Amino acid sequence: MKENTAGSNISIGVFDSGIGGLTVVKKLREKLPYVNIVYLGDTARVPYGTKSEETIIRFATEDTAFLIEKEVDLIVVACNTASSVALTHLRKAFKDYPIFGVVEPGVKMAIHATQSNSIGVIGTIATIKSHSHKKFLEREGITNIFEKACPLFVPLAEEGLSEGEIPELVARHYLEDIKDHIDTLILGCTHYPILIKTIKKVVGEKVKLIDPSSALAAKVSDFLMSKNIQPVEGNGKLDLYLTDIPPHYHSLLNLFLGFEPDTIEKVNLSEISSC
Amino acid sequence: MKENTAGSNISIGVFDSGIGGLTVVKKLREKLPYVNIVYLGDTARVPYGTKSEETIIRFATEDTAFLIEKEVDLIVVACNTASSVALTHLRKAFKDYPIFGVVEPGVKMAIHATQSNSIGVIGTIATIKSHSHKKFLEREGITNIFEKACPLFVPLAEEGLSEGEIPELVARHYLEDIKDHIDTLILGCTHYPILIKTIKKVVGEKVKLIDPSSALAAKVSDFLMSKNIQPVEGNGKLDLYLTDIPPHYHSLLNLFLGFEPDTIEKVNLSEISSC
Repeated sequence: MKENTAGSNISIGVFDSGIGGLTVVKKLREKLPYVNIVYLGDTARVPYGTKSEETIIRFATEDTAFLIEKEVDLIVVACNTASSVALTHLRKAFKDYPIFGVVEPGVKMAIHATQSNSIGVIGTIATIKSHSHKKFLEREGITNIFEKACPLFVPLAEEGLSEGEIPELVARHYLEDIKDHIDTLILGCTHYPILIKTIKKVVGEKVKLIDPSSALAAKVSDFLMSKNIQPVEGNGKLDLYLTDIPPHYHSLLNLFLGFEPDTIEKVNLSEISSC
Repeated sequence: MKENTAGSNISIGVFDSGIGGLTVVKKLREKLPYVNIVYLGDTARVPYGTKSEETIIRFATEDTAFLIEKEVDLIVVACNTASSVALTHLRKAFKDYPIFGVVEPGVKMAIHATQSNSIGVIGTIATIKSHSHKKFLEREGITNIFEKACPLFVPLAEEGLSEGEIPELVARHYLEDIKDHIDTLILGCTHYPILIKTIKKVVGEKVKLIDPSSALAAKVSDFLMSKNIQPVEGNGKLDLYLTDIPPHYHSLLNLFLGFEPDTIEKVNLSEISSC
């Protein structure tokens, strides 16, 4: 990792199973406008959250190798599923690179927010099955933990059904059982902030909703400061790589990022990793 | 293609983006119990229906090449998305193999069923965007065609939410506008028969629901008869290959197939197609 240099010399590699991880890019850009970001969205194989641990680890390893080929200085795993299932493996496989996941910052933010020490976690099937948030929370002394997989939230968000009767009914279906037991709820998937108004309506004002992406951006910022990376004027570059350009990607870019990347390129990971 | 031989010497290759295509295998087994079936479910990259035409064609080509390596005699594309988008390409790329898609048999069944010549088609985003059913229907003289993409139906079916308040509300959301204009509705996705009770409730008894898988099985059976393939006693083998073994695959197998395959193996298509 570089030290004592201008922020404009730093490049952060960010990956996600799809386009949802751009919510993390948005927070990084707000916090560290001057760094360059290389984003890989594995849109050809999205979602990861319904797949097996073995397959998620293979995909996350290929994603990280791709970003390292692009000469990034550090890696941000902007996908809760990959952070939950593959982070330990990635840190072993790519020892020379600082790798940040999205689970730990979210957990710390939730512990800071809770007053009753009763915390809820929602995420994909794979994230919840891994109990990654639960393990972190328990290590920090929290024992009242309520976990719930919400597999319909991603397709709802991607279809733009973020408010109204359908998402409300689905949110009630998932959250009715846990909402009265918690005062803090971790949104353990980058898609869920899109549904925040509906989730808030269902769980009520007394439950604090935790979006881990700002805590993750703050953690990366602290790390760069510790390496004496200096802020500079102007925005860095944002290069976007996608394994598929889906028909509705432009509206999704707008939904999750809200500004235009400098470059967009389609890549085929299997060609890169083969031979 | 072999001719004048016993059915037990024939092997049919079937592929789908996931496990939904096993509804087609079920119909093939009922119609042609003695043939062997090699099934490939691309569960690592499922779904196809939200992805681009270019990516769907690449995936379908890899799936077909895998089945041909397994020495099948003919190919059945049990995925409406791949049938809609990639069939022409597959027939050019694999000229020596009879390749059957699921779109044409469904369309013919619908034309046989309709009395008002007003037909609805529901499917994934990619299937509907391809207008594959519409083009076939128009070629057969049908002009009152109502198409609707229903992207939430697949995640609902996979979560086992086939009946009740949520699937009913979602079905109303998609079908309210078209239900009064049609007397026949093509279920243009192998997952949709799982939701058939709910769809029937929403569109009403007067609309006939068309599940193309039985028409497809009948077409394959006619083809084998034309090649003088002889029925024999006993069941053929069913070999199941999946690119991922998802956490909940056993309940899905039960839901879509209802009997046990002879073998189940996990395969990595990118390793097979590389180098």
